[in-house]
Amino acid sequence: MSHQQTLTTFVATFVQQLHKGGVKRAVISPGSRSTPLAYVLQEHPLIECHVNVDERSAAFYALGMAKKTGEPVVLLCTSGTAAANYYPAVVEARYARIPLLVLTADRPHELREVGAPQAIDQIHLFGHHVKWFADMALPEDSNAVLNYVRRIATRAIAKSLEAPYGPVHLNFPFREPLIPDLDGAFEELQEVRTISLYRGEKAISKDQARELAVTVNSSEKGIIVVGPMDSPHVKDELIQFAKRTGYPVLVDPLSHLRSALKEESLLIESYDAFLRLKDLINRLKPDLIIRFGGMPVSKPLTQFLQAHKAAEHWLVDKGTEWRDPISTVTSYIESDDAAFINGLLPFLKDRTYGSWQSFWQDINAVTVHEIGQYVMNERDEGAIVGRILRQLPVGSQLVVGNSMPIRDVDTFWTREASSLSIWANRGANGIDGVVSTALGISSVSEEPVYLLIGDLSFFHDLNGLLVSKQHANNLRIIVLNNNGGGIFSYLPQSSEPKHFETLFGTPTELDFEHAARLYGASYERVIDPEQLDAALQAQSEVRGVSIIEVMTNRDENVLTHRSLWRSVQSAVERKIGGE
Amino acid sequence: MSHQQTLTTFVATFVQQLHKGGVKRAVISPGSRSTPLAYVLQEHPLIECHVNVDERSAAFYALGMAKKTGEPVVLLCTSGTAAANYYPAVVEARYARIPLLVLTADRPHELREVGAPQAIDQIHLFGHHVKWFADMALPEDSNAVLNYVRRIATRAIAKSLEAPYGPVHLNFPFREPLIPDLDGAFEELQEVRTISLYRGEKAISKDQARELAVTVNSSEKGIIVVGPMDSPHVKDELIQFAKRTGYPVLVDPLSHLRSALKEESLLIESYDAFLRLKDLINRLKPDLIIRFGGMPVSKPLTQFLQAHKAAEHWLVDKGTEWRDPISTVTSYIESDDAAFINGLLPFLKDRTYGSWQSFWQDINAVTVHEIGQYVMNERDEGAIVGRILRQLPVGSQLVVGNSMPIRDVDTFWTREASSLSIWANRGANGIDGVVSTALGISSVSEEPVYLLIGDLSFFHDLNGLLVSKQHANNLRIIVLNNNGGGIFSYLPQSSEPKHFETLFGTPTELDFEHAARLYGASYERVIDPEQLDAALQAQSEVRGVSIIEVMTNRDENVLTHRSLWRSVQSAVERKIGGE
Repeated sequence: MSHQQTLTTFVATFVQQLHKGGVKRAVISPGSRSTPLAYVLQEHPLIECHVNVDERSAAFYALGMAKKTGEPVVLLCTSGTAAANYYPAVVEARYARIPLLVLTADRPHELREVGAPQAIDQIHLFGHHVKWFADMALPEDSNAVLNYVRRIATRAIAKSLEAPYGPVHLNFPFREPLIPDLDGAFEELQEVRTISLYRGEKAISKDQARELAVTVNSSEKGIIVVGPMDSPHVKDELIQFAKRTGYPVLVDPLSHLRSALKEESLLIESYDAFLRLKDLINRLKPDLIIRFGGMPVSKPLTQFLQAHKAAEHWLVDKGTEWRDPISTVTSYIESDDAAFINGLLPFLKDRTYGSWQSFWQDINAVTVHEIGQYVMNERDEGAIVGRILRQLPVGSQLVVGNSMPIRDVDTFWTREASSLSIWANRGANGIDGVVSTALGISSVSEEPVYLLIGDLSFFHDLNGLLVSKQHANNLRIIVLNNNGGGIFSYLPQSSEPKHFETLFGTPTELDFEHAARLYGASYERVIDPEQLDAALQAQSEVRGVSIIEVMTNRDENVLTHRSLWRSVQSAVERKIGGE
Repeated sequence: MSHQQTLTTFVATFVQQLHKGGVKRAVISPGSRSTPLAYVLQEHPLIECHVNVDERSAAFYALGMAKKTGEPVVLLCTSGTAAANYYPAVVEARYARIPLLVLTADRPHELREVGAPQAIDQIHLFGHHVKWFADMALPEDSNAVLNYVRRIATRAIAKSLEAPYGPVHLNFPFREPLIPDLDGAFEELQEVRTISLYRGEKAISKDQARELAVTVNSSEKGIIVVGPMDSPHVKDELIQFAKRTGYPVLVDPLSHLRSALKEESLLIESYDAFLRLKDLINRLKPDLIIRFGGMPVSKPLTQFLQAHKAAEHWLVDKGTEWRDPISTVTSYIESDDAAFINGLLPFLKDRTYGSWQSFWQDINAVTVHEIGQYVMNERDEGAIVGRILRQLPVGSQLVVGNSMPIRDVDTFWTREASSLSIWANRGANGIDGVVSTALGISSVSEEPVYLLIGDLSFFHDLNGLLVSKQHANNLRIIVLNNNGGGIFSYLPQSSEPKHFETLFGTPTELDFEHAARLYGASYERVIDPEQLDAALQAQSEVRGVSIIEVMTNRDENVLTHRSLWRSVQSAVERKIGGE
């Protein structure tokens, strides 16, 4: 066979097997060395390709797609520093457990480490941060090599979907010429064998379940803590588990459970506010804590868990990373969440609800009321976030930036808000790549998608907006612009005025109206809450990307947040005193 | 001592030793965990700190500073994906041999790999792409630990400056609280011992020099090829070496020798045009090729070297990377360039120049004339680049983007142009980070600094412009906007129309006037060469960042470039025929 035919067969076999293994989407950045894979992916009738010029944004865009769908997404770029630009998203994908298949094109072996242009050492380029790496063979078309290609493609998918999910990296050396023969590339492959995969999940045994159930049955004062979840699909099981155990469930904004707040009275959402009160921390002492998902966003909740080190504390996780930075876990339960719950249920005795449940619910109700009042009466960033959460269309997908936005969502997303699905990059909590993550989520969503983001984070990934010019992504962006790094005003650094604005405040003085123009987005600047309401209404009619920029003030935000903690304290004290 | 005092002493000792070791500049990205180092660097009276929000841009900004000064520059960021954003510049620094001291803050050991927020595995984060990595001890203030800190600081600098220069990475775990005591942090350190370093360089021995000189003395038809050089400081030695050997010197645009074209007749610059002619390749057959620096930009030159595999071919380099992707080298000479030249000179016999020299010079003169005509008469991207090179103020620093701009500079920078210093990122030849590299160079330059860049590359690092709002960098940017990836039109991909614009052309339809507004830069759009002349004139008066956007056409560029090769061919044939 000719070089071109061999190249085509090799690459088409790989892409065909990716498709059979469940890959539906690829994000491609332009480049020369990656030409064979780019052409064949683009040519495949059932793989949807998106082109994204800036590889850093491209990787977060793919991450957003994979986050929402739970399916592995292909990333492809050329040789050189292009691939190094994927690193932030690869790291995030590892810790957030997102399946990504990173494909990098490379120079062939004779051009490695000899000073050839655009050739860097791509072997294990992402170090420990991918779950699996393989340096592919040069294209050949013997049956042995084509079987190897199918096996590698299947294995890459399997590795990315093995608990915990994560990124894998395949490096493809190609010799010139690089252009495959697209004419019927896939036709002759239709009939060849492909490989199937049936993947089991970790589940606790009957004996383990029986033993664990004894503790649950004897612990009246239990709580369930659901942190950021990899997948929204265990919601029903978690709610069923809560009802059977009678345990209040502290639901992180990323638990995918806050959308059920209106219906489920055992769900507790305002703990970030009321667990700041020392008195309450003592009165709410649990005997058993059962934790699902990653560490919660809320620092007061973390401190609450630390305060109750004496309690039995279980961490259920099929990943084996032992996500317990505060060292309070007494039992690690390595099991799929649903398998754990379904294993336990037959052994649980019925429980009568009493003061344990009602006390949590009462305190929560009082706090939720105070938060509601605050949202109505205040004008700071927190109140604005609360206002937004109460006005978004039910069922919206809300992507939330790190630093302050996710914390404000944690505080202000109560049962008075709309029922929403919330997403954030909480693997490494970076402020990078958030715009692209949201656009990636939007590209695979039927529902309206919103992005709530601070000005520094928005700036960091402005480049991400370019993709919306090529692919008709709808995204409604709300930028909370406090002109710099708002979170630092809440940290001890703020008490050291010397160098504070230079090193931490970092005001950028950016007017994002120009960014909106650059990328063809609609734009509105908002100063007060009433304007915001009208702007949100108007935004719901816009197609494409629309930006609302809300101007806020860092110093004011800190002061008003503190006033909320005080009014929650008074209200809780009234409640407790009145009992 | 208190935690704060211990922290302060530990960090101040480190920073003090960095300064003693020659560090004058640091680029800091805002973050919390990095607070101790950020405060102390900012507080140091003799270290100039620049804050740059986007870590990817920050790293290229530091790279630009280090590239121009030849001195190591500190990079500092917080824990998490922040550091992963440094990766593209770290890779570029490795291959371009730029000394960078990458400092990352980290969570302490008990918060690693336990699901703590913003904690990722930072051990060997940059893999093979740094020359040295150390995970620092937690702050202590025993003499043993402070000596260790001084030694690490010195070693980091030494490693970054050991041939070949490159990046090193130190990871600093810090426990809270993170704020050092700035009050007189350095005063008590004034008198302590610091470590000095005297670093030798590789030099050939007298016997080796004598042996090598025999070959030079017996080779009448020698050439010297000077590719991209790590440092501009061997210019005088190289010219002296050329004069003594009588060898024509093919000078890459990044050799730092083209600035001497007007004075030195042995320097040959238009080879990229005339070495496309098969006839000439044969007639210019050398016996000995002596190569300095990296692989030249010019593909015709590379093919010329390949065509003369039979010649003796020396590669002089104190780095040990054997930068010879075409496998034509017959002797690797591991030596500092100047040491090699100075070692050889005493053994070289005097040489009378003859037809070997004059033939190279004549062909070069004919070609330079044709290029000059083309620049005067054409209106495409190449002619525009030539026009710019002829108009910039003498002594300007010109930073050139990868892909087409550097190739056009290679072609059109003849002795008719101004005397300039040229810089580019030719380690990995990426289109990323170029704006920041130019701003970094500008921040350490007295001379006017220009950036010549394509639209995709300019887009890729738009974020880099933010720093110019905080630090008064002057940079004159000329964007060659052909609406997409111009280089692909010169590659075989362009003959496959299917998917071409989607995968390779990638038109972005960006109007950079909005980007200029966003970052407070002055802006002018230019369509024809006459407008360009006026715009360049106007630009020379502007302070801060100014942008000239020149609109060109990808398809036209390819056609007109080809017409240049044809007219050079005719002129050379006339010249040879007329002899």
